[in-house]
Amino acid sequence: MESAKSYIEKNKQRFLDELIELLKIPSISADSAYKKDVLQTAEAVKKQLEKAGCDTVEICETPGYPIVYGEKLIDKKLPTILVYGHYDVQPPDPLDLWESPPFEPVIKKTKLHPEGAIFARGSCDDKGQMYMHVKALEYMTETNQLPCNVKFMIEGEEEVGSSSLEWFVTKNKKKLANDVILISDTGMIAKDVPSITTGLRGLSYVEVEITGPNRDLHSGLYGGAVANPINVLAKMIASLHDKNNHITIPGFYDEVEKLSKKEREKMAEAPFNIEEYERALDIDAVYGEKGFSTNERNSIRPTLDVNGIWGGYTGEGAKTVIASKAYAKISMRLVPNQDWKKITELFKNHFESIAPAGVRVKVKPHHGGQAYVTPIDSLGYKAAEKAYEETFGKTPIPQRSGGSIPIVSLFEKELKSKTILMGFGLDSDAIHSPNEHFGIWNYLKGIETIPQFYRYFTELSK
Amino acid sequence: MESAKSYIEKNKQRFLDELIELLKIPSISADSAYKKDVLQTAEAVKKQLEKAGCDTVEICETPGYPIVYGEKLIDKKLPTILVYGHYDVQPPDPLDLWESPPFEPVIKKTKLHPEGAIFARGSCDDKGQMYMHVKALEYMTETNQLPCNVKFMIEGEEEVGSSSLEWFVTKNKKKLANDVILISDTGMIAKDVPSITTGLRGLSYVEVEITGPNRDLHSGLYGGAVANPINVLAKMIASLHDKNNHITIPGFYDEVEKLSKKEREKMAEAPFNIEEYERALDIDAVYGEKGFSTNERNSIRPTLDVNGIWGGYTGEGAKTVIASKAYAKISMRLVPNQDWKKITELFKNHFESIAPAGVRVKVKPHHGGQAYVTPIDSLGYKAAEKAYEETFGKTPIPQRSGGSIPIVSLFEKELKSKTILMGFGLDSDAIHSPNEHFGIWNYLKGIETIPQFYRYFTELSK
Repeated sequence: MESAKSYIEKNKQRFLDELIELLKIPSISADSAYKKDVLQTAEAVKKQLEKAGCDTVEICETPGYPIVYGEKLIDKKLPTILVYGHYDVQPPDPLDLWESPPFEPVIKKTKLHPEGAIFARGSCDDKGQMYMHVKALEYMTETNQLPCNVKFMIEGEEEVGSSSLEWFVTKNKKKLANDVILISDTGMIAKDVPSITTGLRGLSYVEVEITGPNRDLHSGLYGGAVANPINVLAKMIASLHDKNNHITIPGFYDEVEKLSKKEREKMAEAPFNIEEYERALDIDAVYGEKGFSTNERNSIRPTLDVNGIWGGYTGEGAKTVIASKAYAKISMRLVPNQDWKKITELFKNHFESIAPAGVRVKVKPHHGGQAYVTPIDSLGYKAAEKAYEETFGKTPIPQRSGGSIPIVSLFEKELKSKTILMGFGLDSDAIHSPNEHFGIWNYLKGIETIPQFYRYFTELSK
Repeated sequence: MESAKSYIEKNKQRFLDELIELLKIPSISADSAYKKDVLQTAEAVKKQLEKAGCDTVEICETPGYPIVYGEKLIDKKLPTILVYGHYDVQPPDPLDLWESPPFEPVIKKTKLHPEGAIFARGSCDDKGQMYMHVKALEYMTETNQLPCNVKFMIEGEEEVGSSSLEWFVTKNKKKLANDVILISDTGMIAKDVPSITTGLRGLSYVEVEITGPNRDLHSGLYGGAVANPINVLAKMIASLHDKNNHITIPGFYDEVEKLSKKEREKMAEAPFNIEEYERALDIDAVYGEKGFSTNERNSIRPTLDVNGIWGGYTGEGAKTVIASKAYAKISMRLVPNQDWKKITELFKNHFESIAPAGVRVKVKPHHGGQAYVTPIDSLGYKAAEKAYEETFGKTPIPQRSGGSIPIVSLFEKELKSKTILMGFGLDSDAIHSPNEHFGIWNYLKGIETIPQFYRYFTELSK
């Protein structure tokens, strides 16, 4: 039987070309101006799933963007793997920082990717990683090595909070029934350090609006006499952290999971070089919550970050104005046991309570999701471990990620199955940033590893 | 001899039409995209000065936008009045808050302006008030009542700090020699409460840039572990005021002029209704430096206001990003004795000193000017007082304005003459804001009052 390695070698160029075609469509779910493109991407994914061997593929309408569902069921008695991914992408701005246009994919060699990397928005998050599964299926069907049943659920709203997914999942529990859920939407520690993500942070995303005077004012005639919404917003945001960078929202830490000394020591074993980390970001020092390491700060600790702020005159030159309104987008990363809806409520009440007289405050909850931790003794985890050992020659390290895939906890709740996060991207791939890219080596390694998971999961399930 | 009143009555419509033509040209000096329009406005002003009776008018080139200079010298032995004004305007944004396009003037009645007001950017600041002087000259020349020599200096960079004016004035001291400088670029307390501005605040305008990581980052993977430039900027801005809203920059208040109890009591006599003030701005409370009244806060006290802030994702929807950079435009209004260059230096040093490790800070000084106080016993002040008494039937109230006309102190230093600020606009005219307007009554009252100033100043000079 033909090995994945040799099949990939033969079809390598086509695998790249097909992904590049997919990356050319600007499926930006956050911006309604790209609606047509998002829908077109769903069609393209459908076509590829059919080609790869799915028996049935449908574009399922939702209150938002459609979900592409495909399946190949070969035997009721065999286990069923549900693959989840998303075909939408983050907005590409700031555009001027891209070295090549975000939706005109180019292949360039980098220090970390001497074999070349595909530069384009979505190359890693998540079109590239999602498409590994499509090509892995093609390999298994073309060479008659599909060992079990498989279902695909590829959505188009992940970057805007998967607003329609819960609606879809609860309506289609039977259709989506599975023994394990497989997702590639995370990263690995390094090319030579395979890892499986066992923890994800939750998220609460809000937008705030501060209104002062009913119109923009001349800062000379009114300066000093009325509350300036921008100054007030800055004061309110600043007050959300104390001098140790603890978050000051009352009750915010009440449910935060406390890791044991032993667990923290185990975490500290993951290879990490602070100097390299600082050099890669060109910063002279890291920054964060007192009493925790960098790896702890971005994985097991909750955070509050302003993702965007705007107000007043931001054009060329000078305008001596006091703005009527100021805005900010603020997100909080949450850890196991913090309920995102409760945290959102705590934020809203606190933020409204600290507004001084002279301004009005609006807090608009955007979206969110729960944090998640997966056990490392499950069938799925063991199967993934063996798959990596086979293709990397190394046992993968379990790691907590700072990112969020809110739907993982939704799946556990509604579909009663565990999720395995097999990520093949690198932190340096600049997802959500200008010049996002995905290493060709990582892309092909993923296509090679995934069928091994299918094999071991089926064997271990016997 | 024909009175100004009757001449104005006859030519009223034309006076309005000519101003409206001038207001149609978007002479936005802050935005280089409008360069052609700014230059075209200079040409239009030149044409009108010639028509109004100037013997010679020239467009004087400068390192920036040109200065329109015109003169009518009738007799060396008679005093000379130098009229200053500006033909450039503030940027109109936010455009969506304008009820009619900023450069398509319309006349509408308002509660305060039952005779109608011209709505357009620049209608009051300063095209409208500058043009009153052109029409006043026309009346005096057409009816052979010009009692003295007159010079006009109309610039095109006032809204961006009059960058070229000092260069021009120092080079042309002889040409600009005068006995008094007359400016209408301020306001009056109310239509029935004429006032002469005797004090202006100085200004220091800076732009700050905070740089954290060398690229935008995924807020999940990096959130909590690196300094977020927006959070840091908010913290730094917030720290610039203490809980009493005093500015915390070391040395900031050292030179601030302290007014006597008596002076403050005199100020407090100016008619002011806090409820009306709050209602007009739709705010539930005023805000400002502890220990001072609203009128003191925006006139005799220095301030620090953020005029614009931006960073990260500000588009539709959500983007979970940590921005590489965050920016703010910050201006400080200064009072007599505070040197704007020294204050700018104090700000720069302080702001850079409070930046935490993990970010880099750039402070770019923009422009500025000195505060000014004029005596109320000068010839010019007395002449203005009499002029108002004649046309308003009331003695004008001397008032401190919160605004800045940096060039006034420049004139005193270079040309050794006092400036008289005869403003005819109202605070509610929304200068620098959407829906700027200028009352027709105020416009014509100005044209009527200015010739009286010429007459009395000439008489008192004998």
